[in-house]
Amino acid sequence: MVVILKENPNKTQLDSLVSWLQAKGIEIHPTVGVHQTILGLVGDTSSIDIDLLNALDIVEDVKRIQEPYKNANRKFHPQDSVIKVGNTAIGGGSLTLIAGPCSVESEDQIISVAKSVKASGATILRGGAFKPRTSPYSFQGLRGEGIRLLKLAKEETGLPIVTEIMDASQLDLFDDVDMIQVGARNMQNFELLKLLGTVDKPILLKRGLSATYEELLMSAEYIMAGGNMNVVLCERGIRTFETYTRNTMDVSAVPVLKKLSHLPVIVDPSHSAGRSALVAPLSCAAVAAGADGLIIEVHNDPEHALCDGPQSLRPEAFESLAKKLQIIHETCWINEEEVG
Amino acid sequence: MVVILKENPNKTQLDSLVSWLQAKGIEIHPTVGVHQTILGLVGDTSSIDIDLLNALDIVEDVKRIQEPYKNANRKFHPQDSVIKVGNTAIGGGSLTLIAGPCSVESEDQIISVAKSVKASGATILRGGAFKPRTSPYSFQGLRGEGIRLLKLAKEETGLPIVTEIMDASQLDLFDDVDMIQVGARNMQNFELLKLLGTVDKPILLKRGLSATYEELLMSAEYIMAGGNMNVVLCERGIRTFETYTRNTMDVSAVPVLKKLSHLPVIVDPSHSAGRSALVAPLSCAAVAAGADGLIIEVHNDPEHALCDGPQSLRPEAFESLAKKLQIIHETCWINEEEVG
Amino acid sequence: MVVILKENPNKTQLDSLVSWLQAKGIEIHPTVGVHQTILGLVGDTSSIDIDLLNALDIVEDVKRIQEPYKNANRKFHPQDSVIKVGNTAIGGGSLTLIAGPCSVESEDQIISVAKSVKASGATILRGGAFKPRTSPYSFQGLRGEGIRLLKLAKEETGLPIVTEIMDASQLDLFDDVDMIQVGARNMQNFELLKLLGTVDKPILLKRGLSATYEELLMSAEYIMAGGNMNVVLCERGIRTFETYTRNTMDVSAVPVLKKLSHLPVIVDPSHSAGRSALVAPLSCAAVAAGADGLIIEVHNDPEHALCDGPQSLRPEAFESLAKKLQIIHETCWINEEEVG
Amino acid sequence: MVVILKENPNKTQLDSLVSWLQAKGIEIHPTVGVHQTILGLVGDTSSIDIDLLNALDIVEDVKRIQEPYKNANRKFHPQDSVIKVGNTAIGGGSLTLIAGPCSVESEDQIISVAKSVKASGATILRGGAFKPRTSPYSFQGLRGEGIRLLKLAKEETGLPIVTEIMDASQLDLFDDVDMIQVGARNMQNFELLKLLGTVDKPILLKRGLSATYEELLMSAEYIMAGGNMNVVLCERGIRTFETYTRNTMDVSAVPVLKKLSHLPVIVDPSHSAGRSALVAPLSCAAVAAGADGLIIEVHNDPEHALCDGPQSLRPEAFESLAKKLQIIHETCWINEEEVG
Repeated sequence: MVVILKENPNKTQLDSLVSWLQAKGIEIHPTVGVHQTILGLVGDTSSIDIDLLNALDIVEDVKRIQEPYKNANRKFHPQDSVIKVGNTAIGGGSLTLIAGPCSVESEDQIISVAKSVKASGATILRGGAFKPRTSPYSFQGLRGEGIRLLKLAKEETGLPIVTEIMDASQLDLFDDVDMIQVGARNMQNFELLKLLGTVDKPILLKRGLSATYEELLMSAEYIMAGGNMNVVLCERGIRTFETYTRNTMDVSAVPVLKKLSHLPVIVDPSHSAGRSALVAPLSCAAVAAGADGLIIEVHNDPEHALCDGPQSLRPEAFESLAKKLQIIHETCWINEEEVG
Repeated sequence: MVVILKENPNKTQLDSLVSWLQAKGIEIHPTVGVHQTILGLVGDTSSIDIDLLNALDIVEDVKRIQEPYKNANRKFHPQDSVIKVGNTAIGGGSLTLIAGPCSVESEDQIISVAKSVKASGATILRGGAFKPRTSPYSFQGLRGEGIRLLKLAKEETGLPIVTEIMDASQLDLFDDVDMIQVGARNMQNFELLKLLGTVDKPILLKRGLSATYEELLMSAEYIMAGGNMNVVLCERGIRTFETYTRNTMDVSAVPVLKKLSHLPVIVDPSHSAGRSALVAPLSCAAVAAGADGLIIEVHNDPEHALCDGPQSLRPEAFESLAKKLQIIHETCWINEEEVG
Repeated sequence: MVVILKENPNKTQLDSLVSWLQAKGIEIHPTVGVHQTILGLVGDTSSIDIDLLNALDIVEDVKRIQEPYKNANRKFHPQDSVIKVGNTAIGGGSLTLIAGPCSVESEDQIISVAKSVKASGATILRGGAFKPRTSPYSFQGLRGEGIRLLKLAKEETGLPIVTEIMDASQLDLFDDVDMIQVGARNMQNFELLKLLGTVDKPILLKRGLSATYEELLMSAEYIMAGGNMNVVLCERGIRTFETYTRNTMDVSAVPVLKKLSHLPVIVDPSHSAGRSALVAPLSCAAVAAGADGLIIEVHNDPEHALCDGPQSLRPEAFESLAKKLQIIHETCWINEEEVG
Repeated sequence: MVVILKENPNKTQLDSLVSWLQAKGIEIHPTVGVHQTILGLVGDTSSIDIDLLNALDIVEDVKRIQEPYKNANRKFHPQDSVIKVGNTAIGGGSLTLIAGPCSVESEDQIISVAKSVKASGATILRGGAFKPRTSPYSFQGLRGEGIRLLKLAKEETGLPIVTEIMDASQLDLFDDVDMIQVGARNMQNFELLKLLGTVDKPILLKRGLSATYEELLMSAEYIMAGGNMNVVLCERGIRTFETYTRNTMDVSAVPVLKKLSHLPVIVDPSHSAGRSALVAPLSCAAVAAGADGLIIEVHNDPEHALCDGPQSLRPEAFESLAKKLQIIHETCWINEEEVG
């Protein structure tokens, strides 16, 4: 951490700052320039609140040098983490396909989609039970009943299931869920993150709509600080000025997050785009950039599509896409060292 | 709502869409152009999911004409709402000053600040008990103990208190709190909003860091749909590319939100700027633009400022500012009709 | 175009609006709702200024239905355009690699890089002569001399050359340049675009840092309206809140722009990322998403890299990458219909 | 400037970097931490390209401490600059109102508006001759003829005139123009800025739609580096996710730019909002925040408003607003020290 002091700082305040920092075990290396003095702080600065330093009269600016996350930081955990989800795993060189409908609607629907995506290579089933909706007048999901139906599909197909939690009070319903998803709007629901840090299940943590990489990793850190190291990061599109797509998939997030962290990184091309015609090219792009997996919406009944999201693929399209993704993954993964 | 169809839409799918809409009581007015047909939908479209329509093969685009919020909409409630908070009220022509420290730290601190801001014209006391922090390693607030101290300050000064809730499970602790604040990061915590819709207390709803005006009003709608009509909207700065300020106060939010909605609109200049030197000019700007009130951070102990936020004013500065704000408010409010 | 009227519009003003529109050959289809009347406008609305309509007292909002660009619109030109550049071409199923240094620095440098990238499969040479720099104190490029050196490299290798123009007054120097680049900061330099509309050379038009797809296509339209149909679109990263990367490559731009327009779309992964380690994964992603080509920075002298940009690849890395890109291109291009 | 090195940097490369910096007269102060070494650079770092340093293999990150602008920097010019424009001046404690129509349309129109705004207290006349339009099919302004009409209005009223230049080739037409405006889209048209640095006229420099404060000040620096110190900065709204307003006026720009720079800062509330109903509250807010002036669109013929911008005030509204602004300015300016 580097603290830039204002010109001619008050001596008493400076001494008080120096003592306060030293009491926290921080070493201080000053650099005196003509207009500015900067203090280089050496030691564990992760507990120092950058805003508090900025508050001081004598401080002009503070710049963080070291990443504020530890458990999620690749510097301290150079090996890729592989996260177990039921009978499968995410990370470590394989390509994981998570697929299923936007919302769980009925037993027939979820079991039929589950069978179909399993046949095409998906190894985890997704489906929304609790649905975060912008309007209180929109369908809010089947909730507990949705989770019950997901369990039926799991029993039928053997696929582990992932579904979203929206509030701490819902946790009891997630006993048979294999991976708990935290949605983009809850990425900084810190009380929920703390609770999930005490749970013995993998967490699929989606990036917030305007969150930076560091903020996503700090949210992962909330979970990991509680003892749960099984976090999978998910890029799902960020808000930009472009309105043609619902969100803008940030494909750079894949190589950057994998460089900064040892956690697996998957991509959700369905919510990024909000348009089914874009799911295939964005999926190819994400895998070409090195993603450990994808989470894709697949629906089974285009004739009654009023109940399906605009971003859902049909099963045939998913099957065809899955084959191509495998080729891209092999091409990109095998040759990784050459390009690096 | 206007639905733009693709060229040469499939007849069966179009009939099915028309029937589905008519079954919901919507009248359909088609406009046939050379390249495109558009359907004008007349009736209550608030329950129609725009994303679901977009999903249809025959639909190119959907544009909403009517606002999707009802209870919060000024069209249906032309009179300004005045929201009672303890022994005072927000809205209706007066200027409300809410002031207090960033975090509640001790009995001495909160009572001393409370007395000082009351003397300068503040009529509601603020203070953080539960603190949303980006890092799990930062101070998370005194929590329940902080609320207890706020109550002591209320007893001592008679000022009603407002403080932030972060999770539904904390509600029991808020019995003696006069107004419950929902922070920017929880603006779309829909389960929490639903719960607050059932509570008999005013809610101070802060705009999310990247939220649009419509999204803020839809979050107010979540609370109001549950029966609690006592919502105060708060502009607290949005995320932009500028990094000199922590966030960018959007002063246009004041006149726009007051035009779209009957709810009172207040501004938080402290969190917008993140720099104490900006609190005074931004407060003046907000009041000049027509804000119903301000929520300002004031701390009492600059000598030990390591624990205070960089955006806090000292009591003397708050007192001086309060006087000027009153002049601006009177100038702008009295002459309102002339300017229109 | 759809015009939403305010409640109870002034009859005289409405009649005046209707006459004005009809005089422009526009047909008007009204839809009368309870709270709102909307006018559907049928005909060529491309010359109607949406802001002017919005200015009217009786108008609440205006929504455009048809794209405001014609020459660039795929609806009116369904076939892919193939743009000739010297002895090669961009678009139509092949993958074009444009490569070269950030800035032209010396005869040795540019000829050596040109030979090396040609050997690895690049078919067009890039190199900056006029450099747009944020600071007036930074190196501004070799300017005219840089173009002279590019011509030498072209004579030596046979590669056509592309370089950036920054002002209309520089056009005379571009006689032997095969393709003229318009940089992101000049995407809305409308006087320059008009001039380039009269030139008989292909134009490489880069997307502005915060431009939407429609704005990019309207800038292409400026060039095409002048008669020059040879425009290649280039995605080069947009500004977002993320600061780890210099800009955020918007990979969705590739499939979306190719859907909206018949013009070829290439991607600049070097400027998007601003970090050489990201060039390879982002290049793979862009090609997997269907890009017609890439423009990549390659430098030749890593030992004296102080003069090279942080985003430049070394020739060996470019060669290895080029091979992989060809595989991805073939995989994605051949199977296109299956995925759709 | 602070250079953060990667762990275990290559010794030869580090020595080469150190020599290169020392040759530029920079002193180097290293701070050695457990995981990272940082180099504090002391001296004039304004000519060091931050991107070039970032390019080095041994460098992890570079952070600038000192502002990269000199002539525009208040640190080196503590006194407010007062910029003469014809027979009036901007800055130094007075409030300057610049007013006039969006586009110059006819002799009658511009003279009539000029007389009317002069009577209400405007001291400079604005009017567009060259119009930057997103569409090549929209009206592009009267161009040279527009400037001729502005001169007539100047002769008639004595008001100095300001109008926008769009290309270096137009400069000859600006001989009788008192202040030359650079529009938001040309804020980084560096060749134009360089040219304007050689001109003996004040320049009104508008902030780009997504530009940071530093980028605006660097564009001012381009002009000042050429010798023209007469620059007035103008906040005119930035692009955000909100679409209700055309742009979002950043009122914080006023106090921040005035702190960072000695140049006067004015605000354009008309283009920020794009809605006439917002011009009054935003004008009040800008003046309350300390703006040195405003540039406001006023039109004279509401009955034929199809040719006026949606953001234009009528003369009566401008007159009423001007009175109120004077009160706010006096309130805020007189008490400045008390609030500070």
